[in-house]
Formats: sequence, C-alpha cells, structure tokens
Amino acid sequence: MSTIQETIHQMGRQARAAAYQLAQLSSEEKNTILRAMAAAIREATPELLEANAKDLAAGTEKGLSSAMLDRLKLDEKRIEAMAEGIDQVATLPDPVGQVMEKWTRPNGIEIEQIRVPIGTIGIIYESRPNVTADAAVLCFKTGNATILRGGSEAIHSNVAIAAALAKAGAPEHAIQLIPFTDRESVAALAGMDQWLDLIIPRGGKGLIETVVSLARMPVIKHYDGICHLYVDHAADLDMAVSLTVNSKTQKCGVCNALETLLIHRDIAETFLPNVAAALEEKGVTLKGCDETRHHLTNIAPATEEDWSTEYLDLILSIKIVGSLEEAVAHINHYGSHHTDVIVTTDHTAAEQFLRSVDSACVFHNVSTRFADGGEFGFGAEIGISTDKLHARGPMGLRELTSYQYRVRGNGQVRG
Amino acid sequence: MSTIQETIHQMGRQARAAAYQLAQLSSEEKNTILRAMAAAIREATPELLEANAKDLAAGTEKGLSSAMLDRLKLDEKRIEAMAEGIDQVATLPDPVGQVMEKWTRPNGIEIEQIRVPIGTIGIIYESRPNVTADAAVLCFKTGNATILRGGSEAIHSNVAIAAALAKAGAPEHAIQLIPFTDRESVAALAGMDQWLDLIIPRGGKGLIETVVSLARMPVIKHYDGICHLYVDHAADLDMAVSLTVNSKTQKCGVCNALETLLIHRDIAETFLPNVAAALEEKGVTLKGCDETRHHLTNIAPATEEDWSTEYLDLILSIKIVGSLEEAVAHINHYGSHHTDVIVTTDHTAAEQFLRSVDSACVFHNVSTRFADGGEFGFGAEIGISTDKLHARGPMGLRELTSYQYRVRGNGQVRG
Repeated sequence: MSTIQETIHQMGRQARAAAYQLAQLSSEEKNTILRAMAAAIREATPELLEANAKDLAAGTEKGLSSAMLDRLKLDEKRIEAMAEGIDQVATLPDPVGQVMEKWTRPNGIEIEQIRVPIGTIGIIYESRPNVTADAAVLCFKTGNATILRGGSEAIHSNVAIAAALAKAGAPEHAIQLIPFTDRESVAALAGMDQWLDLIIPRGGKGLIETVVSLARMPVIKHYDGICHLYVDHAADLDMAVSLTVNSKTQKCGVCNALETLLIHRDIAETFLPNVAAALEEKGVTLKGCDETRHHLTNIAPATEEDWSTEYLDLILSIKIVGSLEEAVAHINHYGSHHTDVIVTTDHTAAEQFLRSVDSACVFHNVSTRFADGGEFGFGAEIGISTDKLHARGPMGLRELTSYQYRVRGNGQVRG
Repeated sequence: MSTIQETIHQMGRQARAAAYQLAQLSSEEKNTILRAMAAAIREATPELLEANAKDLAAGTEKGLSSAMLDRLKLDEKRIEAMAEGIDQVATLPDPVGQVMEKWTRPNGIEIEQIRVPIGTIGIIYESRPNVTADAAVLCFKTGNATILRGGSEAIHSNVAIAAALAKAGAPEHAIQLIPFTDRESVAALAGMDQWLDLIIPRGGKGLIETVVSLARMPVIKHYDGICHLYVDHAADLDMAVSLTVNSKTQKCGVCNALETLLIHRDIAETFLPNVAAALEEKGVTLKGCDETRHHLTNIAPATEEDWSTEYLDLILSIKIVGSLEEAVAHINHYGSHHTDVIVTTDHTAAEQFLRSVDSACVFHNVSTRFADGGEFGFGAEIGISTDKLHARGPMGLRELTSYQYRVRGNGQVRG
C-alpha cells in the first residue's frame, strides 16, 4: 500500500468506529452538536476567509474562470448562510429510529423494520467549499460518519471548514477530510468497501463516471437533467407558455431546468409563436426540428445531439410530435430520467403520461423547477438522484438512512 | 465490439423495450401470464428432463462432485416444485402501483410517491437451473425485464426452462437468457449501465466479487452469513440451548445458520457442558477460545480465522466474553452483518444489543433460522441482502421495485 492508501484506509477504520458511536446518539444530542457546529463556523469566520483567500489567489494564478472563482469564493454572507443551513438541519425531524413497519407472525415473533444510519459515507466533490459543511452535516444528522474528498482548488477552505466543524463536540472522526486532492485518493476511497458503505460524487459527469468505474461500494449518482415539457393538444396554452418560460428561465444552470420542449402537432401553429415570443423576451435561444422551423423560420436547426444535451443555459430545443406516445418515446429515449412534464387539461392523457414516462419526477401542469428537495418539503437535500436503486429523485435525510429488522420472540425455533 | 458484446447489448436494448411494456401491465395480466408460465413448465417436463440429462452427462464427464450433480439435477418432483413456485408467486400481492406516501404542498401541488418496477435486471448465477425460473418470475411479477446468465454446467437445462417460460404470452424479451457462459459475457453484462438498472449475482463469494469489480450499475450482494448467538448472563439457559441447537443444526448449509456462539463469562461454567452435550448429540464439532477450552477440554482451539469463517457445516466456534459490549464489538468486527441473536431475559440488555449490532437482522430470543423472506411473511424471496443500500436482509417483491414521484398541479410556477 502507498502512503495515500494507508492514510485513507486508516481514515476508513476510524470512520467505522465513529459510525458506531454516532448510531447511539439521540436526536437531541445530535442537534446540540449541530448547533455547536453552526456556532463554530460563525466563530471561525476570520480563519475561513484567510484560508479562502489562499484558494482564490491560487485559482487566479491558475487562470480559473471568473465563474469558477465565484463558486470558490467565501465571504461573510456565504459563511453566515453556511451556518444558518446547519442550524436549519438541527430543526429537521430525525429519521433514525423511525419504525417503518411492524408486524407479528403467526408463531408470535414480532418484526420491526427500523430506520438506522447507513454507516460510513464518502463524499467526493469539486470546487464549492460549502459542500464540505452541507454534506457532512446532513450525514451527521442521520448518524453517518463521513469522509470528504474535495477538489484541489478549495483545499485550504475545506480544511478550515472541517477544522471548525471538529470543534463542536462530535465523536472523534465523525467528519474527516482527506488531505490529498490527487486522483489516487479517489481510487483508494472507492476501493475500500470494507470501510465505506456508500459514495456520493457531487460534481460533473466526468467525476461521476470516474467514481462509478472505480467504486466497489454503492454509488448514488446525480447525473444530468435533460428535462422535457410536453404540450398536449388539449393543453391550456396560456398555462403552457407560463410553465415553459418558468421551467426554462427561472434558473437555467440547474439540473431541473427545461432543455427540450415537445409540442403536439395539432396546436403547434397556434402555440409556437406565443411561446417563442415569451421565451425570446427572456433571452432564450431556440433550436427546432424541421417542422418547428416551418413555423419559426428564424431559428437554428436542432441536431440529433441537441436532444440529449443538457444546455444549462438559455437555450431550448423544440420538437413537434404527432401523439402523446411519440412524446413519451422521445423522452424515454433521449431524456435522463430526471423530471418531465405534461401540460394538458385531459386527465386521461395526463395519467397515461405519468404512468409511461420512466423518470424520477413526472409532473402534470407543474414547472420542472419543483423537482427539488426543498420544494417537496424535505427541508434539506443532498442532491437529486438519477439512480433507481435506494434513492430516486430529490434526496432528503430519509434517503441517507438504511434499515434493520429487529425481531423479538420468546424462544421460537424453526421446525 | 466483439460478437458476444454485440449480442448482449442487443439483449439489453430489447430488455429496456420489454420493460416499458411490462410496466404497463396490470397485476391481473401479469398473474395470468404467470399461471401460463407454470403450466408451460409442467408441459415441458419431457424437454426439461432431456436437456437436464445432457447437463448431467457433461457434469459427470467433467467429474463434478455428487453434491454438485445433485444441485444440477431436475426430476419430475423438482419440475413440479418449480411450477408450484410460479403459481404461488401469482397469488402474491403486487407492490407495483402502491402509493408509498402522498402529500399536498402549501402551493397546492400534490405529490405522490408510487412504487414502480426497477426496469431491467441482470441475474448472474451458478449451477442450480431452478434459479432460471425463480428469479425470472419474481422479476416478472414486479414488472421488470430480466437478462439471465447461468453457469455452463446447467446451460441446456436453463435454455429449456427459458424456452418454456417464453411460451406463456409475456411481452417479447421480458425474460432473456444469455446463450454464452464464458467470463466475457459477465463483463459485457456488467458494463452496459445504459441498458441494465441492477445486477443480482447469486452464488459464491468469488462470483459476487467478480461482478462487484466489473459492474457499473448497482449490485445487490448476498455475501456470507457469519451469524452469532450471544448468551447473556441473564439468559434462560434452556432456551439458550434450544436456540443454539436450532440455529446451528436445523439446516447447516445456509447463510442464516449459526457459526459462532458467544457466551457471557458468568454463566459459561453452567451453560457450556449443557450446550456442548446437546450440540454433540446432533453431530456438531466444536471449536473454542482458550477459556472455553478450560471448560470443554476435549475440543479444538478456534483460531483467528475461525471467527470470520462461514462453515456451512456442522461446526461451531465458541467464545467467552466478559460483557454485552464485548459481544457486540466481536460481532461488528468479525460478523458479516447478516443475522445476530441475543438470548436474555433482561429487556434493557436486549434492546441495547438490538440497537448496537450493525446487522440486517438482529434478534432477541429467536433462532437465526428465521432470517428468511418466507418466515418474515414476504411470500417469496430473491435472497438475503448483506448490503445496506436499497435492500437489507430478506428481499421480497417490494425490494424488486423502485419508486417515482408523480406530481399534479394547476399551473404552479416557481417564484
């Protein structure tokens, strides 16, 4: 084993031991520590700013884009937001210990299915230093020990945040930050399935792909959101315009923003000029299929590649379809199984769409932007899973737990 | 791409298309097809026996052990049992379509969390040909398309079983059997995460390890069962003898059989001779820690390796511990997080044990042998997961489903 591997395996052993202690804490004990973490972050503001200045200087030297530097940047407002986020997590209900189901068998044994922490969770993330606090705190609230591995750009900030969190009285090693930022540390983390129960990569597709190919333990993936909105022939067209504009423009750089608009042929001629005008007013560039371009002659063609592109920008591809079935087939083929919407006044068509689209979130007459843990009422969100196993769609605290069967009897044996 | 890869990717595309059709079938439609599958298996008895004879002849030629040949063997009774198993699955409640939770947000959007099929599932298994029918049928009941990859020893039997199942009117490609039995086919299957949502390997540790290292999609693992029974100082010692004997000997070659007995020091002197006599009467070979061997001088020493060995045989290792905490630490360190039991009349001790042991099943005063989907009342079992994500412990039909959020509104946009 290399030094890096040895260090990370040692962190794994420590995380496992911490997880056993964490699992025994009451919700009150955890909430007290969380409030102390928030206070520690506030108190460490000077240290955090100093550490962050080093990262920003190194980033400027390295020629990072201004967008990247902005993501990296901490200021007093952002540090206060981080602390407030932690205080808020302390107020949320704790899923650990909840009885999911309970039944008694004919032989008298009583079976309880109880939510328990997952155990140990690795978080691999890129530039934003606030992930260090956000992810660690959600895992802590649910009784999980975390091993964090952030990107090199934010290393000083991450170290300072982790040091502040460590002052709040949590069991030792409950939150550990890997001091290495090279690829070998990702490989070491992803390989030690004896110590790590789950990895959550938070970042771009390249990072997720790397983790998926290396990991021996489960990975919860948050891939692209190639979200669709289908305007049925029975749609309220004013509502369709409003939902399209909101889905595309309310915030365009996020995974639950709209990327492709599907329009039923029967209403295309009426609907297209209206929606195009509303979108263009918001600065959206449109691309269309050939038929769309008969109606909107001034827009660029959408290529095969466009249908599977997550623009994360003020760009929208438009396609005319002949039926709900064609819309569903397009979504299931080109989409990323994240969030897809039908706009219609036809209840039967809506239900058929919801039943047939293979996505985490399927919406009727609602903006794609509601695919969000906060909007769902989860109080906190670790991400939006594009996986189908364990957690699908917005992931709250509950999705950071596992379960255990606790069975009580009075000497039953199997015959 | 090689021919094998191309063939398997083509099967993947077909499975995805079949999954979309399967997801639309009603429970009644699925049950009708299941009953037709059972009938088709019964009707195909001559073909199954003929195919199985080829496998048995090849196995004999290859020098397979008589135990292996027995696992491979089909006879009229086993074929009838296979058909009965399918008929029974038809009678079980269908989890697909169940509303898990439902709530309305202050803005009026209604959110439903609904059970849906996972989609496409790969099953990789070893010699027993009945897995072909068992696994495919459980996946079919839950609306999932399967791609089966059995071992080379049973290839003729597997092909014949799959051919019989295909005659029952299921959507085309709902159940597909890979005609290759080499390792390349496992790699191809494990690599195509665009077509396969889950892999379940059913077999020995070597097979599972291989799949884990190759798979890009989630894997549900059924590793060893190194199960413990801890006899507390406050135990009813007659009950402790009875539970130990049942856990070890009622069926010893299975994952929920007892492998290590932990005994509190305070009752060791009284308990050990009684339990040893009862176990030896059933032909169990005992191994013990040094202290155990002071009381039972005629048994072999248990080495460090014994504590993490799944004997699957009439062998039991025994260790004396000084406290419940020591028992828990031993179990969490050496166990496989499968099933562990405390025997005690002390309610507080029992609850502490259940809360502290990090295993899928934690039992109080119950034989380990109850860690079983059938005994839990699930009606059917695809296996006992030693994973913590998605499914833990006995896996029934419900664990073969995912979920989807269906959201209904009247034009809500995000502000």
